[in-house]
Amino acid sequence: MSVRTPDPYPGWLSEDELSEARQRLPMVYVEAVPVRCDPLGYVTEVGLLLQATAEGKMVRTFVSGRVMYRETIRAALLRHLEKDLGPMALPQLPPALVPFAVAEYFPSPSQSGLTDERQHAVALAYLIPVTGECDPRQDALELSWLTPEEALSPDIYAEFAGGRGDLLRQALASASWGR
Amino acid sequence: MSVRTPDPYPGWLSEDELSEARQRLPMVYVEAVPVRCDPLGYVTEVGLLLQATAEGKMVRTFVSGRVMYRETIRAALLRHLEKDLGPMALPQLPPALVPFAVAEYFPSPSQSGLTDERQHAVALAYLIPVTGECDPRQDALELSWLTPEEALSPDIYAEFAGGRGDLLRQALASASWGR
Amino acid sequence: MSVRTPDPYPGWLSEDELSEARQRLPMVYVEAVPVRCDPLGYVTEVGLLLQATAEGKMVRTFVSGRVMYRETIRAALLRHLEKDLGPMALPQLPPALVPFAVAEYFPSPSQSGLTDERQHAVALAYLIPVTGECDPRQDALELSWLTPEEALSPDIYAEFAGGRGDLLRQALASASWGR
Amino acid sequence: MSVRTPDPYPGWLSEDELSEARQRLPMVYVEAVPVRCDPLGYVTEVGLLLQATAEGKMVRTFVSGRVMYRETIRAALLRHLEKDLGPMALPQLPPALVPFAVAEYFPSPSQSGLTDERQHAVALAYLIPVTGECDPRQDALELSWLTPEEALSPDIYAEFAGGRGDLLRQALASASWGR
Repeated sequence: MSVRTPDPYPGWLSEDELSEARQRLPMVYVEAVPVRCDPLGYVTEVGLLLQATAEGKMVRTFVSGRVMYRETIRAALLRHLEKDLGPMALPQLPPALVPFAVAEYFPSPSQSGLTDERQHAVALAYLIPVTGECDPRQDALELSWLTPEEALSPDIYAEFAGGRGDLLRQALASASWGR
Repeated sequence: MSVRTPDPYPGWLSEDELSEARQRLPMVYVEAVPVRCDPLGYVTEVGLLLQATAEGKMVRTFVSGRVMYRETIRAALLRHLEKDLGPMALPQLPPALVPFAVAEYFPSPSQSGLTDERQHAVALAYLIPVTGECDPRQDALELSWLTPEEALSPDIYAEFAGGRGDLLRQALASASWGR
Repeated sequence: MSVRTPDPYPGWLSEDELSEARQRLPMVYVEAVPVRCDPLGYVTEVGLLLQATAEGKMVRTFVSGRVMYRETIRAALLRHLEKDLGPMALPQLPPALVPFAVAEYFPSPSQSGLTDERQHAVALAYLIPVTGECDPRQDALELSWLTPEEALSPDIYAEFAGGRGDLLRQALASASWGR
Repeated sequence: MSVRTPDPYPGWLSEDELSEARQRLPMVYVEAVPVRCDPLGYVTEVGLLLQATAEGKMVRTFVSGRVMYRETIRAALLRHLEKDLGPMALPQLPPALVPFAVAEYFPSPSQSGLTDERQHAVALAYLIPVTGECDPRQDALELSWLTPEEALSPDIYAEFAGGRGDLLRQALASASWGR
């Protein structure tokens, strides 16, 4: 415990402690579906990240990450957008912080349809217009821009991790895309 | 014009005047998707009306109707719910009047995907839980209660009038139903 | 009536016809509260228009206007933003068209608290970030940028037309501003 | 660690572990403002709980509580509503799970205006109509039903804990109450 003395609020846990907490508490996450919009605000393209799972399988996912201790939702959202899309993406965070969905990920299948084997996560999910240049970093192998039709096509839909295809449908529905 | 003297704000137009206005102005509508929910608020059933069009075709539709002059949105919503579902339906109007979608119906195909050959209508669309007994009246031949899966199945989807299948998908997506 | 033959859907009415319709039908409006946001999306300033009423009184108002026949909500919103803020305002229309409020203006006082002596208007109200240079045109004498605190101060609040002070409070509340 | 063997996912932590986690991770909360509505859905009364703080001060608060490990938002909401309002309150959980606000409580003053000295909590805040009989239990000394005007009056406003007066204003603004 003495290690913590000089820094009582470090804002993060050791890997072990975090693993332990993930077995006991829901984690707060933010999730962002990056979109390109035309001047009228209609969504023209959706940005999907392609990542490799621990088992080496390629899956589609969104910008996503944990909210740290004492971090605001907005700061976490901007931090993960910059981390995943690069510093020049120019995401436009909306003035209203109400998410299009509250996504509930559970370690085993549930009514929510969303799963995350590592943890129980409550993710606030946003549709975020980006206007700049995207340069995926970190563990993302690729960022693809697809039309809403393409993104919801059966082939792509089958590639989403943890049930996120349904979440994408909800995201586009919130933008009046009902197909 | 003298007819109007004793009643300068009658709240409605003659059939001719209304037909004329429908060629010139967007009409304000409310639209309600009646749902049955379990105690946790999960949608278990969707109420769809079956109506005959002027051409005798059977189509699926929602509770829907015009907002009258000097009528509030809430009063119009309750009036049309009672008209279409009967007086014992016990609809639960939400404290927040923000619709799940603003549905734009145009007389010819457009970006919105919704059409109404009679008019340009701007419909505020709500998901309304009903807890009582429904007894469809007027021109509705039938009210069917379907599970969300059934309501979005290709067969049923093909029966919706004016593109409302997409609107139903948006309605269910607002209730976290993304499939 | 023959005048209409070559143009059956002109998209507007004569002044007389519009006056008449305003006594009989609710009009569809869009209303926009322009805001400046910081990179995290927090509202830093609210843009208020100062206009002279027919009686010469100076009142605060928002970007506002009618939706024309066959015009989409988005097109109307952009048209009125350009008309009131100039062509370089660069408004960011959101991907979701759900308004922060449905504002109901009646010709006489009502439960909604909003009045418009000319008509019954149903206005879809949006909070719209603008990132460019604003140059108010038309009948607006001035565009003032105020902090949220200033905009809701009693002095400014008393200057709003038709009860729009309450609507501004709702707009800022939707951006988590509760004071 | 052996203690955990028979129950690897107990859904809660010991008091010590929870205290520790509260210094390191944001906690997921739900918060509910109970309201009574008239048949049109207009809010007529707001239910406020009166509680004693550890220091013996009386403060106003809402229904509030933690989301447990593997518990859905809806289950947590219903559990806390029953705990605080009694089993006969008949709360009407909405089909859409999107909160009126995401309330961010921090252990020290911040931009959010909301504080909770025990922890960093991210609370999904809902306006929940209740139609039955309320019987406050547990640590609530009293449940008062006030009109929106009364609930936002300066005297009552000053009695809210942790900045919740602002949150109440946001709650009522989401129900078109802008005053």
